[in-house]
Amino acid sequence: MDLWVRERFLDRFEQGYKVSETLHFSQSEFQEISIVTTEALGRMLLLDGMIMTTERDEFIYHELITHIPLLAHPAPKKVLVIGGGDGGTIREVLKHPSVEKAVLCEIDGDVIDVCKKYLPTIAGKLDDPRVEIVVRDGAAYIAEHKNEFDAILIDSTDPIGPGEKLFTKEFYEGVKAALTENGVMACQSESPVAVPDECRRINSLLRSVFPYVQTYAACVPTYPSGQWSWTFCSKGIRPLDSINDDVAMTIAAQARYYNREVHQAVFALPNYMREIFNVESSKTLA
Amino acid sequence: MDLWVRERFLDRFEQGYKVSETLHFSQSEFQEISIVTTEALGRMLLLDGMIMTTERDEFIYHELITHIPLLAHPAPKKVLVIGGGDGGTIREVLKHPSVEKAVLCEIDGDVIDVCKKYLPTIAGKLDDPRVEIVVRDGAAYIAEHKNEFDAILIDSTDPIGPGEKLFTKEFYEGVKAALTENGVMACQSESPVAVPDECRRINSLLRSVFPYVQTYAACVPTYPSGQWSWTFCSKGIRPLDSINDDVAMTIAAQARYYNREVHQAVFALPNYMREIFNVESSKTLA
Repeated sequence: MDLWVRERFLDRFEQGYKVSETLHFSQSEFQEISIVTTEALGRMLLLDGMIMTTERDEFIYHELITHIPLLAHPAPKKVLVIGGGDGGTIREVLKHPSVEKAVLCEIDGDVIDVCKKYLPTIAGKLDDPRVEIVVRDGAAYIAEHKNEFDAILIDSTDPIGPGEKLFTKEFYEGVKAALTENGVMACQSESPVAVPDECRRINSLLRSVFPYVQTYAACVPTYPSGQWSWTFCSKGIRPLDSINDDVAMTIAAQARYYNREVHQAVFALPNYMREIFNVESSKTLA
Repeated sequence: MDLWVRERFLDRFEQGYKVSETLHFSQSEFQEISIVTTEALGRMLLLDGMIMTTERDEFIYHELITHIPLLAHPAPKKVLVIGGGDGGTIREVLKHPSVEKAVLCEIDGDVIDVCKKYLPTIAGKLDDPRVEIVVRDGAAYIAEHKNEFDAILIDSTDPIGPGEKLFTKEFYEGVKAALTENGVMACQSESPVAVPDECRRINSLLRSVFPYVQTYAACVPTYPSGQWSWTFCSKGIRPLDSINDDVAMTIAAQARYYNREVHQAVFALPNYMREIFNVESSKTLA
C-alpha cells in the first residue's frame, strides 16, 4: 500500500511522508492525536493533522528551546514547560545539573499518555522524580503562580485551537509575573517564511511585555518551510552574558545540535528576519 | 481547479505547492524544463520535476553560494559559475565591484532562455557586458582552463542526470587547476538531513583534492528538508581571514540574507553536521 500522511498549510503548500505503520489514532477532549511511523523520520506525532515532532529531527527543536534560555540563567532551579506534552523539552531541561524541579503543564493528558507509550526516546524522562506533571490550561496555571520560576519554556502548538491563548498579551504578562527577577523565558515563535505576519504580531506582543526580547532561528525540517524561530525574553538578562562554560560544555558533549558556536550563531539573523523581528543587528547581544 | 506541483524524494517524503498558472513546459536535449506560478513562492523553475529555484526564496541560495567565497578573496576579477542557468548566482557575482568578467558555463542553453523569459528578477543580469555565456558541459570547459579564475562557483543540480559529472574527483581536480593561486571555490553540497551519505561522499572527495575545505549551512525552504549546505574550498585561503569590510558592508546593504554576522554564523555547524562534514569545530576558521 502506498500510504502517505500529508500536512497542508494555508492551502498553499504541503509536505508528505510515506507511512509504513499507523500506530495510534484517537480524539481527545481537545484534538485529534495520531502516531505513525514514517520511512524518512521514524515515528511522528500529529495533532489535528499537524506534525508536532518526529523521532529523527526532534532534537533540533527541543535542544534549542531549552538550552538557549537555561544557559542564560546562572543556575536555574525551578523550570516550567507549558505545552510540550511529548516530553522532549523536559528531557533537555533535566540535563541541566542545577534543576531541582521541572513542571510540565500540558492541557491534554492524552498527549502525554500517547507519547509515553509510542515515543519513549522523547517522553522517556517524564517519570524522573524531579518532574511534576500538571494537566491543565497553561494560561490558567500561569495566572496563579508569581515570582516562582527561573525559566519558563512555551512549547506550544500553533496559535490556533488549544494553543491560541498562549499567544496573547495577557498570557505573556502572566509569564513575566511568574518569573523570578533573573528569570528567562523562551517560546516557539513560528516560521518567518511560512507566516511572517504572525511572527511580527508575536514579536510585537512580546516587546510590549518584556524589557529584553531577542529572536533566534534554525532549520527544523518537519515544520512549515523548515525555517523556524524561537524568542528569548527576560526582565533584563541577556542570552550570552552569563553562560556557565562548564555546564554549556557538558550539555554540548551530549547534544546532537547544541554547541557553543551554534549558541551564538542562532542569534545571527539574516536581513529578511531582522526586518520581521525588528532587530537592527545581533551586536545588540554584546 | 485545485492544481498542485509535487516533488518526491527517495520515495519517502515530498513537498507540494499550489499552482495558479502553468507558464512553460518543454523537453530540452538534457531535461524537462517547467515554469509554474505558485501561490506560496511566486514563479518556480523545475528541472525534471525537481524544484530548482523560486522567485521568493531564491535569494537565500544565491547570496550564500556567491558572497561567502567571493568575500574570502581579496579582489576577485574573473569568476566562473558552472551550472546556474537561472542567472541568480551571476546576478550576485556582479555586485562585487572588483569583478571584471563573469563566465556562466551552463550545459543546457534552453534553461537560460526560459529563465530570461519567465524569471527576469533572477536572470535579468545575464545581459550585463561583464558576462560571458558558454553553453557547454562544465567538466569539459574546466579541463581546458588552467590557473585562470579567482573564484569558481559550482551551482549544479543534484548528482543525478546532467549534474552527475560535477560531483567527481576528476572534476574537482580540474576546478583546483582552473583556480589562481589565491582562488576560492564554493559548491552546493546537498542536504545533510535528506541525503547525509551523499554529503559525506562529496565532503570526502573535496578533502582529497583541496587543502582547505569548510562546509557552511542554512535553511532553503524549497530544497529537500529545508536544511542545505555549501562547501568552501581553496588552496589555503580561509573564508574569514581577509574580508574586505567595505565590500562586505556594501553587499550586506543590498542583501536580503547576507550580513556580517550571518557570514560567520553559517560556518557554525550543529553537532550532527560536524559529524557528517568531518569538522571538529568552526574554531578551525580562526
